[in-house]
Amino acid sequence: MYTVKSSEELQASLQQVVELLERSRVLEDLARRQGGPQHQLLEDLTRRQNMAALHNRLKSLHPADLAFILEALPPRERLEAWAQVPSRQAGEALVELSEGVRASLLEGTPRPALLEILRQLDPDDLAYLSESIPPDVLEEATGALSAQDRSWVRTSFRPGSVGQLMTQEVVTTREERACTDVLTELRSRGELPPQTDALFVVDARNVLRGVLPLHALLTAAPDRAMPGLWSPPAVVFTPDDPARQAAQAFERYDLVSAPVVDERGKLVGRLTVDAVMDFLRREAELKALQRVGLRGEEDLFAPSWNSARNRALWLGINLATAFIASRVIGLFEETIAGLVALATLMPIVASVGGNTGNQTVALVIRALALDQLSWASMPHLLRKELAVAVINGLGWGAVMGLFAYLLYRSLPLGVVMAVAILLNLLVAAVVGLAVPLLLRRLGRDPAQGSSVLLTFTTDGMGFLIFLGLARAFLR
Amino acid sequence: MYTVKSSEELQASLQQVVELLERSRVLEDLARRQGGPQHQLLEDLTRRQNMAALHNRLKSLHPADLAFILEALPPRERLEAWAQVPSRQAGEALVELSEGVRASLLEGTPRPALLEILRQLDPDDLAYLSESIPPDVLEEATGALSAQDRSWVRTSFRPGSVGQLMTQEVVTTREERACTDVLTELRSRGELPPQTDALFVVDARNVLRGVLPLHALLTAAPDRAMPGLWSPPAVVFTPDDPARQAAQAFERYDLVSAPVVDERGKLVGRLTVDAVMDFLRREAELKALQRVGLRGEEDLFAPSWNSARNRALWLGINLATAFIASRVIGLFEETIAGLVALATLMPIVASVGGNTGNQTVALVIRALALDQLSWASMPHLLRKELAVAVINGLGWGAVMGLFAYLLYRSLPLGVVMAVAILLNLLVAAVVGLAVPLLLRRLGRDPAQGSSVLLTFTTDGMGFLIFLGLARAFLR
Repeated sequence: MYTVKSSEELQASLQQVVELLERSRVLEDLARRQGGPQHQLLEDLTRRQNMAALHNRLKSLHPADLAFILEALPPRERLEAWAQVPSRQAGEALVELSEGVRASLLEGTPRPALLEILRQLDPDDLAYLSESIPPDVLEEATGALSAQDRSWVRTSFRPGSVGQLMTQEVVTTREERACTDVLTELRSRGELPPQTDALFVVDARNVLRGVLPLHALLTAAPDRAMPGLWSPPAVVFTPDDPARQAAQAFERYDLVSAPVVDERGKLVGRLTVDAVMDFLRREAELKALQRVGLRGEEDLFAPSWNSARNRALWLGINLATAFIASRVIGLFEETIAGLVALATLMPIVASVGGNTGNQTVALVIRALALDQLSWASMPHLLRKELAVAVINGLGWGAVMGLFAYLLYRSLPLGVVMAVAILLNLLVAAVVGLAVPLLLRRLGRDPAQGSSVLLTFTTDGMGFLIFLGLARAFLR
Repeated sequence: MYTVKSSEELQASLQQVVELLERSRVLEDLARRQGGPQHQLLEDLTRRQNMAALHNRLKSLHPADLAFILEALPPRERLEAWAQVPSRQAGEALVELSEGVRASLLEGTPRPALLEILRQLDPDDLAYLSESIPPDVLEEATGALSAQDRSWVRTSFRPGSVGQLMTQEVVTTREERACTDVLTELRSRGELPPQTDALFVVDARNVLRGVLPLHALLTAAPDRAMPGLWSPPAVVFTPDDPARQAAQAFERYDLVSAPVVDERGKLVGRLTVDAVMDFLRREAELKALQRVGLRGEEDLFAPSWNSARNRALWLGINLATAFIASRVIGLFEETIAGLVALATLMPIVASVGGNTGNQTVALVIRALALDQLSWASMPHLLRKELAVAVINGLGWGAVMGLFAYLLYRSLPLGVVMAVAILLNLLVAAVVGLAVPLLLRRLGRDPAQGSSVLLTFTTDGMGFLIFLGLARAFLR
């Protein structure tokens, strides 16, 4: 058993690990500089003591806490600490790590050590990791497993599906069993898998018939007949169901666990609330990163070269859109040459559109994620967003128009500024509503890329409206 | 019992409700236009039938599903449907609704109906809603409760604290009890509160001594002595603990429920995984909205006037920063007048900085949320982000410099463009790292406002660098 830690205790543990690593680093440097075999021997000894202390420190940590500490360390320190993690914990920590960090550690682990680590894992965890492990290592690591466990590990499910999250640790009972028999069975079992709040009732062919809550078993009179205790399963998933939908059901109906069946109704596994919660957190993190064009879980300390590559594509897209917007300005070079004030004011019009448009986008993405947008409510929503744009456009347009007038003492310039802001806010409202819906229609994630598309439009239209109005009405 | 629904079934339910509401709307319009007392009578009748059908439709829905449907309806339809919700479900649906929608419904409910609804709720739910209900209504609604329940409802906890999320539904047992006694007690109780995976062991003064997992009760031999079954509580919270920290513990240690004690160690409540999951989802949503300057849970169908007010402040801040950036350009009006090409190229430099800076911000915010940033790792991180900026700045800077050269056939202009992009990417890396850390230092949420601050800096610096270089080296 590991002791459970508060956030502060966890920070303190991290600090201790960092210090131990630092101390051994200092000793190494000393040894290298001073030379002298005796000196080196002494330092080597202290260094080894340090590492032993680190090993003992890490040994007492919960795998989830270990994962936390590993994620917070820079790459070199991370690998040094990793080498000191006992193999039993190492495996469970791998399961808890984010993808980027996991990949970096797997790369840095020699094959025999990796095999040792993987052999300590149960089939569920191995199945979860199977995608990240080289096939031949996986083959060797699963050699000692039963045929059933091996096929469990090898069956690969679509990423983001219920199958990927479920566990095979299921406690079943048969419908014809009496209540006291079930209790005796449980006692002889000795231990139940974590997050077990119900037994699954199956028939002779392993087809799921119902769910028997542990609460019912505990509160029923011992001589009570089974049939009254279990009920047909209220929520059942298949391995191909999207995990996002299953998570919604867990949230909505406050589930702790739910059965997973195949297309013939046979029980194949169990989905538990801890897996769902992990999934939700990862999803939320991923969304936040994808929104700014980062591909997946970039490790905070990833090598610069990898990071640069990860971000180059997005930067390229961004430059392409910025380039097009710049060409829109290019159409009006003569107008700007005639009145340089336009060049100073035009970014304001563009930026205001981008910012309010992103607010609409955020609201629409939230509604889409909650399945709350029906076509029936679209006209209402469009009217509302346009009304908001008119109210704010009139108000802030007037303010900025006044500023423009005061700065350049030109009434027409002030009016052009005010009207351009109002118009670009209207554009932003329509585009902010349309872009996520369009992306969804095209079968893409509405969060990913919506902000580039939006900013592209509001920038381009902002320049076009403002400079176009200026050309038409000024001079 | 309510039937549990898949996402598709839920969408179908929503569609049915929308259709029933539409039909009664059409009938109303007809009656208004045609007049004629007989006609009206007939239509009134059909309309009433429609509403009865709606009532029956809604009656069979789980409160969480009801909340979903209410959120997806525009305001007028929402109030019409709300009037048809039986009061028992109405209360539980209120608990599930987002704040904005809840407020709009509470406003639209006459006082007697509201009292009727609130009286059906248990003290936990009442406590949760207490902030949103007018004090005199709450006073009257809690009149029939026991003194203990009343004080539970009235104790108000800090928003975002464990106290706000915990339930008072706790099953306790005494340390001196025998195992068979505990089982008999449970049987005589008849039912356990949802999400009960353990009994809490307390002494005569209600001080928490330990936790007795239901699994242990079920699998132990009936004559087994109690002391071996329960263990000291591994995770304990106090009502003042931040819910965010408690949620991390739930995720990390895969908890289903945990005890909450006061400063003297007395048991005051229980935190359950469903409350934690709701909290996490709301937090994630709130973050996504706050990032674009929306205050809290704006109802998708809120009145335009409210929405405009909600967004006006952010728009104002945005305009102020855009205005300052525009004044930076103003410093270079002469330079631009001499070479209008500068006006077309400068937004590219600014926009590239904003986009890459936001990527750094997103990574830092994620690391801060996971407590993964220590001061020890800062130098490493800074070096890495700068290296990434140099790599991408050299690459894309060269590309954009080439474009600028090809467009305007000026080698110096191309070089200025390339150098400006490289420099602004370096600015973006430093600022993207500093802004969230600074906000956190100032005790503010790093997610809120970081993108305005960043874009403000990268815009202003982008214009300054590009136009400054142009003034120094061109012509």
